[in-house]
Amino acid sequence: MTVGIVGAGQLGRMLALAGYPLGLDFLFFDRTADAPAGQIAPLLTGEFTDARRLAQLGRRAEVVTFDWENVPAAALRTLSRHTRICPPAAALAAAQDRVSEKRLFERLKIPTTRWHAVSSRAQLARALREVGLPGVLKTRRLGYDGKGQQVLRTLADAERAWQELGDAPLIYEELVRFDLEVSLIAVRARDGTIATYPLNRNVHAGGILRLTRAPYGSQPLQREAARSVRRILEHFGYVGVLAVEFFVRAGRLIANEMAPRVHNSGHWTIEGAVTSQFENHLRAICGLPLGSTRALGHSAMINLIGTLPDRSALLGEAGLHLHEYGKAPRPGRKLGHCTLVEASARARDARARRLLTELAPEIRIP
Amino acid sequence: MTVGIVGAGQLGRMLALAGYPLGLDFLFFDRTADAPAGQIAPLLTGEFTDARRLAQLGRRAEVVTFDWENVPAAALRTLSRHTRICPPAAALAAAQDRVSEKRLFERLKIPTTRWHAVSSRAQLARALREVGLPGVLKTRRLGYDGKGQQVLRTLADAERAWQELGDAPLIYEELVRFDLEVSLIAVRARDGTIATYPLNRNVHAGGILRLTRAPYGSQPLQREAARSVRRILEHFGYVGVLAVEFFVRAGRLIANEMAPRVHNSGHWTIEGAVTSQFENHLRAICGLPLGSTRALGHSAMINLIGTLPDRSALLGEAGLHLHEYGKAPRPGRKLGHCTLVEASARARDARARRLLTELAPEIRIP
Repeated sequence: MTVGIVGAGQLGRMLALAGYPLGLDFLFFDRTADAPAGQIAPLLTGEFTDARRLAQLGRRAEVVTFDWENVPAAALRTLSRHTRICPPAAALAAAQDRVSEKRLFERLKIPTTRWHAVSSRAQLARALREVGLPGVLKTRRLGYDGKGQQVLRTLADAERAWQELGDAPLIYEELVRFDLEVSLIAVRARDGTIATYPLNRNVHAGGILRLTRAPYGSQPLQREAARSVRRILEHFGYVGVLAVEFFVRAGRLIANEMAPRVHNSGHWTIEGAVTSQFENHLRAICGLPLGSTRALGHSAMINLIGTLPDRSALLGEAGLHLHEYGKAPRPGRKLGHCTLVEASARARDARARRLLTELAPEIRIP
Repeated sequence: MTVGIVGAGQLGRMLALAGYPLGLDFLFFDRTADAPAGQIAPLLTGEFTDARRLAQLGRRAEVVTFDWENVPAAALRTLSRHTRICPPAAALAAAQDRVSEKRLFERLKIPTTRWHAVSSRAQLARALREVGLPGVLKTRRLGYDGKGQQVLRTLADAERAWQELGDAPLIYEELVRFDLEVSLIAVRARDGTIATYPLNRNVHAGGILRLTRAPYGSQPLQREAARSVRRILEHFGYVGVLAVEFFVRAGRLIANEMAPRVHNSGHWTIEGAVTSQFENHLRAICGLPLGSTRALGHSAMINLIGTLPDRSALLGEAGLHLHEYGKAPRPGRKLGHCTLVEASARARDARARRLLTELAPEIRIP
């Protein structure tokens, strides 16, 4: 069985590594020939608008999935004429546009931030009045890792941000004064079964995820998150892994955004859970039974960003699991991650704290 | 860093799957283009005697290792003119010839079976007198999975076996009435550090490994096995993973044979140990620090032989890890394996017993 994957980044690469032992074959599609997954699986290259190439992928793959959610709607239509696509195009479309995403959350009664669509100066002024300051002005589409967004604390900030971002459709959101950030990774099988990983607690810096620890949080918090995510999965008749990021404020969850794919905050599941998010995504889209999402201990995942630390020093850390993505170093680029699994949260935090002083001294563990 | 691997079977495939996350690249060499590892990494094809092709591998790889130990000595010499080879050629040579292997065990004072080299009818007669009946007549070279050997219980058996095997140099060994079989997987780093996995208890049928459970045995037995394996590792200045199979009789170990490579009885380490045998072999040969060999629970590995069971039924088993090798079904062929990791030996045995009634009803768990 051949699984087609649009986008051949590290997520695709880790999907293939999880899928080969299941006996699956892969065919990737990306713009560049040196993409990380292309080093370990066959790769078609072309623009995401290249209908001929997409048809080629669709004909050769029994199911197509995505390591990147911003695939143009026309490409999704082309693909779906030739093969099954998972997750469904409607879920990708909702996740591609921050306004659609907010409307979805509201429709499904999932608490989210206050927001206002902005496509003119007049709308920005209205948004500032209704939502207030501080807030975040974001492009509706194609933002990731903190790109395409500006924090506004004053009206002067608003003017500067408008100068920078105003060419694209925007959304203005309240800046939530949260206590911490969490995410939930869940997976829905073809038969409707849903499995949920334990909550991840995430630390971002400069808009980029730096550290994830799991499991996190109380049973009620886990249940509250799972309820919200289940509503999204069932709304779309979703098949595959879905990640939803939440702010936690005074013990309550506020949905921030969703990703219709495997997610950086779930990388710890490779060693830290019985079945990884990658394997479970593949099981789901291939119509296989889901694997257990039980945590095997207390995990910490640290992203390796911009440059890779000395491999030998890193592997000298007892029990550390290294994942390099085969990417050239570049400031701010995710080049790999490493994971620790410890018997207690305390032991994990102590080790993560020590490792971070070497790998990312700017990150403080709360 | 590119690791060259001679032999592109399932062992090579699992090496590559373990090595990609370490940031390693692979180049395989095998006789056939449809070898399992060739599905996930670049593959050169040629005969193992093709010096030009081997030189090509040697020039492109910073280190060359083996998924198959029966590489001709001439090929090893060719390779070593171009690159570093691990484990050392002398260890491969010793493991290729059952007589050299026995002499090595004796030289290193590792208890082994009584044996006699046989290259004529007269020597066979002498071997039968000295070693006695029952015994096993084996080809000195190129035996695997019970192939190239015959059990002799009577003089008539001896005559029949001579007819069948007598064209090749042979060895005659006593048939050990053992209580059970174990193996030890150990790894030696470039700096001489040695790490040892817990003992595996193995069940063979028809000469083929069917079931491995680990950890097995008492501390003294583990220490005794580790002492023997350490002597071999240090004798050769070995770098990489080495597996040694032992019979256990009345609580003592009798070395049966060694494999200078990752080993089927170590497949459980993928999920059942902190660092798998595959990753540790690569860490060793690439000059990286070894990873922890600690077991994470009580593992059972069952080989999938001849035909693959229904994937969906198998993955419906909670916590079961499936490894398919991408090979076409054929009677007696190892097509994959599956692993369970449980919190207790009792729980593991109960599940393994139940699974075996479906997968291999001919196997009884002792």
